[in-house]
Amino acid sequence: MRELMKVLPGEDIIYLGDSARVPYGTKSPQTIQRFAAEDATFLLQFDPKLLVVACNTASAAAIDTLEAMCPVPIIDMIRPGAAAACEACEGLIGVIGTEATITSGAYVRAIHACDPNREVRCAPCPLLVPIVEEGRAGDDPIVTHVLCDYLHDMQRLRPEAMILGCTHYPLLSDAIAKLMGPDFMLVNSGQSAAAKAATLLARGNDTNPRPTGGTLRCFTTDNPQRFATLGRRFGADKITSVDYVGTDELEKPFETLT
Amino acid sequence: MRELMKVLPGEDIIYLGDSARVPYGTKSPQTIQRFAAEDATFLLQFDPKLLVVACNTASAAAIDTLEAMCPVPIIDMIRPGAAAACEACEGLIGVIGTEATITSGAYVRAIHACDPNREVRCAPCPLLVPIVEEGRAGDDPIVTHVLCDYLHDMQRLRPEAMILGCTHYPLLSDAIAKLMGPDFMLVNSGQSAAAKAATLLARGNDTNPRPTGGTLRCFTTDNPQRFATLGRRFGADKITSVDYVGTDELEKPFETLT
Repeated sequence: MRELMKVLPGEDIIYLGDSARVPYGTKSPQTIQRFAAEDATFLLQFDPKLLVVACNTASAAAIDTLEAMCPVPIIDMIRPGAAAACEACEGLIGVIGTEATITSGAYVRAIHACDPNREVRCAPCPLLVPIVEEGRAGDDPIVTHVLCDYLHDMQRLRPEAMILGCTHYPLLSDAIAKLMGPDFMLVNSGQSAAAKAATLLARGNDTNPRPTGGTLRCFTTDNPQRFATLGRRFGADKITSVDYVGTDELEKPFETLT
Repeated sequence: MRELMKVLPGEDIIYLGDSARVPYGTKSPQTIQRFAAEDATFLLQFDPKLLVVACNTASAAAIDTLEAMCPVPIIDMIRPGAAAACEACEGLIGVIGTEATITSGAYVRAIHACDPNREVRCAPCPLLVPIVEEGRAGDDPIVTHVLCDYLHDMQRLRPEAMILGCTHYPLLSDAIAKLMGPDFMLVNSGQSAAAKAATLLARGNDTNPRPTGGTLRCFTTDNPQRFATLGRRFGADKITSVDYVGTDELEKPFETLT
């Protein structure tokens, strides 16, 4: 959302955070697909120009489900991140993500779709999401310790680029960059996806002509106050309107559609 | 469940694990209450003798909701753990738990209901649940590091007893005991709750007369295979039958009841 607002400041955005059922990254593909379809159905009632799946786990597990059901273009996190990494370097690409994202193999497939012979190494980092949600800073000794543990092999393999394959990880990018050393590139999949959204709208002459002034409306399935506090940690200062929508309400329209 | 099977080996148990929506410990009281009510409604269709809320967070946030709706006795985790700690020592009691459990103040209230002047210190430990679910052992250096961080004040205050106020924490009890040193007692709230369940059944002459042979039937809202694997880590070797029940199904009967 933050990256979208940077490149498309004139667009109105409706954001749904399924806080009551997060994290998705430790759940099975079937459950993630069902939740993602419910989330998408909720957002489609606002008649958007396009739908951004702003979660690597949902992108990895549910993109086929979502593309089959959505009448509008979908921007996922995986393919833009994979393409950006392939463009950024010629050598080994590293990927870090949630357990579900890495297990799905989605990044390896997306990188090989761009460059079939590219070497890829992946590392699941299950504790990073709860660490970011707890509010620990990048220089917290526990963050350093956990990152060293997860990135041990990556430090040895020295990929030329590494994809931050989870929307929480950019909050730890300085700490990750420090551990990985110089001559190394971090790819923020959220940034790549936002750039792709901007390109897609421009190509269809569908970009809002006003240069700024896009509005932001947020929904959360848990406590709106908590959502706003956590959102600000992600740099989304513009969060002013947050409404509650229950997961029971999310499950209703989906049932009528299927 | 493991503690229940130890003290009541002749009883049939129906277990529901809401794996699709865990962890509850980072969510708001309102969401936890709704989920807990749905979980209870599902279990009540099996016509149990009693209902055990085998989660400290759900006990802390939703016990009033559950007691108002349940026609059978309810065993929560908080009051038995608090009573056991008050009986076990005369001095300061420490409590560790999830963010939601500690924020609710439920343990302080339950301890003061037993002993109004008892000193209590609480510490939320948000990373311990994901650490246990990741499968890290008690002697993993990251576990030691995180425990030292959370228990820093407790080590200084030296409580006589400390309540493990989350059903995940007994898997780290050796590591916690090692950090806290000698002359110190750990109270396993699950064990205390199981003892209370046994007492309650005995008092009502409702204990199953067979000495062993109780059956176990499990339901999970996410992947049954993953549930069985994780369950075995908690020492529940008896997990053989695990069925899937969707959270959409859980939300239906609750709606018809209210």
